[in-house]
Amino acid sequence: MRVAEIEVDPAQLEVYKTAAKEIIENSVRLEPGVLALYSVSDIDNPARVTVFEIYADKDAYKAHLETPHFRKYKAVTQDMVKSLKLRDALPIAISAKSK
Amino acid sequence: MRVAEIEVDPAQLEVYKTAAKEIIENSVRLEPGVLALYSVSDIDNPARVTVFEIYADKDAYKAHLETPHFRKYKAVTQDMVKSLKLRDALPIAISAKSK
Repeated sequence: MRVAEIEVDPAQLEVYKTAAKEIIENSVRLEPGVLALYSVSDIDNPARVTVFEIYADKDAYKAHLETPHFRKYKAVTQDMVKSLKLRDALPIAISAKSK
Repeated sequence: MRVAEIEVDPAQLEVYKTAAKEIIENSVRLEPGVLALYSVSDIDNPARVTVFEIYADKDAYKAHLETPHFRKYKAVTQDMVKSLKLRDALPIAISAKSK
């Protein structure tokens, strides 16, 4: 699991969001080891984006970095992302309603 | 939706985690409007806790604050939490595998 904190160029935020939606939907749909990706934008500072990421294991994360959709996302958003902090994390408690 | 960043007293981290598990499991199980609560601890700095919270709406969140399990959590963890930052957020993309 990890938490990503991303500072996006405010002028390119809408384009960034479109790219983020595409990578997230493709990753969860196509990759068995990508269990959940939640990307949110702060209400008080919309260019501050937090992503909550759950992978099955380290190999699933490594495989994710090699996919065409991830490479495309990185290339497309390269000039939109002003800073990126990644924090690896361990679960304390993970609970959600069943669908 | 919101992101909570919590700095816990390292000496009380294990007790804090137990309280966090209890509040999270109770809230998702007992409250129809609490859709998901994910609490994680940084690997590099375990006393840094990030909670990702999804409520059905503002009323669900307000109701959550009035529940006995939330009040108990606040009382029990009061002296363990060194700082708490809450950031309200809007979804960019939320995607998870179906169970």
